[in-house]
Amino acid sequence: MAPRKEVFEGVEWRIRVAADGSSEALVPATGLARKAWLGLKGLISGFALKVRMFVKKAWDVGTNDPRKVIHCIKVGLALAIVSVFYFMRPLYDGVGGNAMWAVMTVVVVFEPTVGATLYKCFNRVLGTFLAGFLAVGVHWVASQSGERVEPFVVGASVFLLASAATFSRLIPSVKSRFDYGALIFMLTFSFVAVSGYRVDKLFELAHHRISTIIIGSSLCILVIMLVCPIWSGQELHSLIVRNMDKLADSLDGCVTQYFYQSGEGTNSKEEATDNKLQGYKCVLSSKASEESMANFGSWEPSHGQFNFRHPWKQYLKIGASMRSCAYCIEALNSCIKSENQAAKLIKQHLGSGCLKVSSSSSNVIRELAETVKTMKKKSSTTDLLAEEMKSAVQGLQNDLKTIPHLLNPSAIPGNKTLETACSEATTPTVTLMELVPVVTLASILIEISGRIEALVDAVEELAKLADFGINDDKSKHSKMTDKTVSDAKKQTEGTMKALQRV
Amino acid sequence: MAPRKEVFEGVEWRIRVAADGSSEALVPATGLARKAWLGLKGLISGFALKVRMFVKKAWDVGTNDPRKVIHCIKVGLALAIVSVFYFMRPLYDGVGGNAMWAVMTVVVVFEPTVGATLYKCFNRVLGTFLAGFLAVGVHWVASQSGERVEPFVVGASVFLLASAATFSRLIPSVKSRFDYGALIFMLTFSFVAVSGYRVDKLFELAHHRISTIIIGSSLCILVIMLVCPIWSGQELHSLIVRNMDKLADSLDGCVTQYFYQSGEGTNSKEEATDNKLQGYKCVLSSKASEESMANFGSWEPSHGQFNFRHPWKQYLKIGASMRSCAYCIEALNSCIKSENQAAKLIKQHLGSGCLKVSSSSSNVIRELAETVKTMKKKSSTTDLLAEEMKSAVQGLQNDLKTIPHLLNPSAIPGNKTLETACSEATTPTVTLMELVPVVTLASILIEISGRIEALVDAVEELAKLADFGINDDKSKHSKMTDKTVSDAKKQTEGTMKALQRV
Repeated sequence: MAPRKEVFEGVEWRIRVAADGSSEALVPATGLARKAWLGLKGLISGFALKVRMFVKKAWDVGTNDPRKVIHCIKVGLALAIVSVFYFMRPLYDGVGGNAMWAVMTVVVVFEPTVGATLYKCFNRVLGTFLAGFLAVGVHWVASQSGERVEPFVVGASVFLLASAATFSRLIPSVKSRFDYGALIFMLTFSFVAVSGYRVDKLFELAHHRISTIIIGSSLCILVIMLVCPIWSGQELHSLIVRNMDKLADSLDGCVTQYFYQSGEGTNSKEEATDNKLQGYKCVLSSKASEESMANFGSWEPSHGQFNFRHPWKQYLKIGASMRSCAYCIEALNSCIKSENQAAKLIKQHLGSGCLKVSSSSSNVIRELAETVKTMKKKSSTTDLLAEEMKSAVQGLQNDLKTIPHLLNPSAIPGNKTLETACSEATTPTVTLMELVPVVTLASILIEISGRIEALVDAVEELAKLADFGINDDKSKHSKMTDKTVSDAKKQTEGTMKALQRV
Repeated sequence: MAPRKEVFEGVEWRIRVAADGSSEALVPATGLARKAWLGLKGLISGFALKVRMFVKKAWDVGTNDPRKVIHCIKVGLALAIVSVFYFMRPLYDGVGGNAMWAVMTVVVVFEPTVGATLYKCFNRVLGTFLAGFLAVGVHWVASQSGERVEPFVVGASVFLLASAATFSRLIPSVKSRFDYGALIFMLTFSFVAVSGYRVDKLFELAHHRISTIIIGSSLCILVIMLVCPIWSGQELHSLIVRNMDKLADSLDGCVTQYFYQSGEGTNSKEEATDNKLQGYKCVLSSKASEESMANFGSWEPSHGQFNFRHPWKQYLKIGASMRSCAYCIEALNSCIKSENQAAKLIKQHLGSGCLKVSSSSSNVIRELAETVKTMKKKSSTTDLLAEEMKSAVQGLQNDLKTIPHLLNPSAIPGNKTLETACSEATTPTVTLMELVPVVTLASILIEISGRIEALVDAVEELAKLADFGINDDKSKHSKMTDKTVSDAKKQTEGTMKALQRV
């Protein structure tokens, strides 16, 4: 924590020191007025700064995702339509003052995505229906039981049903699908049951409430689906593809940066890729949004490439699989920032192997992203790239086996021929401590490749469940992949050359 | 994915095979009636099973956390009280039919924790106030502008303000504090402004709405704070302490299990600790709940050991610091499950060092948990344990440096004295591949200890910010810690003996 600062702001003290050295009086040189003025000025400028910051933040929110602005306009539009509907008499004439429920429904059920809106509309209508019927029934029972007992029957039923509905909201399986419905159930039930004691036309009240809610919900559904719809499912799909690309970039970037680290003249490149390196953090933190999107996605009708019963839950498994890779990339990152610097010799020895594993692994992830994105069945390219990854892992393991040749001979007394083995290298020998970071990095890389295999399986299962199409544009696709592979090879070669220069 | 199962359920086919071996006809042996009966039976038993499962799940929810049941009873109680209030005339006489708003307020603002309820009450009252005043103003302007223009003025104001309020809900800083308030603002504004066109006593409507909402909110606040209150802040505090203990158990357990792994007769112990090992996963997945608890905690008044402005945000930093440790434990776990089995010799060589690091690290975490739990300033014990951890790390690094003695001499030709160095060991030499898992484990352990130091700093900052008391019960405390240290030593010694047996 920063030490507490003492602020002297424009107030000066004059100390009169007597001849005997004792101070006589402490008098502020400036009056209260100036102090107050300065305080006020500070307050105003502070407030102005806060407002400016807030406006900037709001502007950023709008410019970063213009769809958010569109969403706001949609909400305004839906509310204005329902208000006009209310003014122009048709709504008011039908249901009277209860027409307000249509306006309220629009306010509370309108969500940014189609799935979330459908979830709320369905829950609101269902909850209202159930509660309305039940409340009318309870009211009938209560009215039969005499005027004195009536409030107690109604009160007890409210107590019991409210407790039960609240409890149901705490059960995970109910919460994920019917949380809002249970709330609306409580709302409507207490509204209708309690009103029954004072309102004569109870049945009419229940009927009006249900019909206005249906009117409001229908309007919301129309607006949300017709004006620039945002689908939860589509969003989840894009998020997963985007996260896969980020994961591949991070993995690639981390390892490349590590083997470039001590090189000179690569700073600009490092800075440019710094954002890419941190991409895996998006994967780590997207669990909650994935889950809510998958939940809302299951409410959405067939749209775009997705059917009504698209296996959204499988996306969660893919997400979990990606997160398990991201945990390892986090550990990789810690190796890179480790204080124990690896010896250059070892870096050269293992660099090529590690780079091959990381580039082939990230190629597999990119190919999987392409599979999910295009919704085509796993092409033979994926198998090919996975095989390449496996052989790269094998190669790295072989490289690890040959390391002992490079170890410090001073630690192994009486060694004679080791010098000849290392005669080509500039730094002939290394200690085990200089070896540890690279060995750790290599073994985490091998672990990541294992986790990527699990990711391949998860994507394959998605392809089966969602019945992905056959990869018909093979020529175009394999051209793309060939390009990826050759790019990766070029990149690896470039890095190797740079390493030899180091 | 499991292969698609073809279900043959009670329907048999009779195949008549002619003398020449060709099959003649395929006829189902059972009629439609039996098929339908079987189908119905299946449906009913399936439904019964589902209901039983659901009841069991609900029962588990209740028994695992009885406070949830209490929460449900509280909701029922609050609703019953407000209903009775409505029946008994005082509420009805004051505000007439608008009394329903009090009932509705109770339904929607009652949340499980005090903080969440206060947040909703405050937002509801504030949003209603602002919107009420604004709507009355807009209504006055609209009524001055003539009957034909009036609907358009109201419609335009609804459109603009609803869009603006929706947009404000998308700005993170507003969302975290005033999301519900913005919703209520829209609700009340459209309610009052639109009603203004049809309702004569608009001011009275706004006044009634505000007073009923205040009545409902006050009742909720009374019930939530007086009947077995659950405080978000207290929950966050306990969650952090609990997660620290889980982290310590996982770290300890992982490393102990690894060095026990190939030992015999330890299965029962393994099973018993398996749950403990997975504890770090709770840390990984608790980010969202930590954030919401910290947010709601900031709404809570002084309670228990916590002041009104307790630094809840610092708990989030501690949580993040713990998660960064948990990522490494995830990587540790992957080492343990690695296919490359480490050589026993290396396990013996590094076992003691690794166990010392893991036990001293987890002791530091446990001590931090104790510091947070008791809210006492960091005792000298923490420094002592942290020093112990550092020296354990140093020891492990030294152990790593001496490994080359144990490496396979066949890889280092002409080595003569290596045999004497390894003469005590049963398996004299190991290959580097057998070394990799242990070296990786050791270097991740070293990384974890570094991250624990960051955790110590985060807890120290919390102690400063929250002005933790001085550790006055020193004797009791240090006795406790001495016990911890001696326990850990005993445990390490026990493990070492077991290792020598392996």
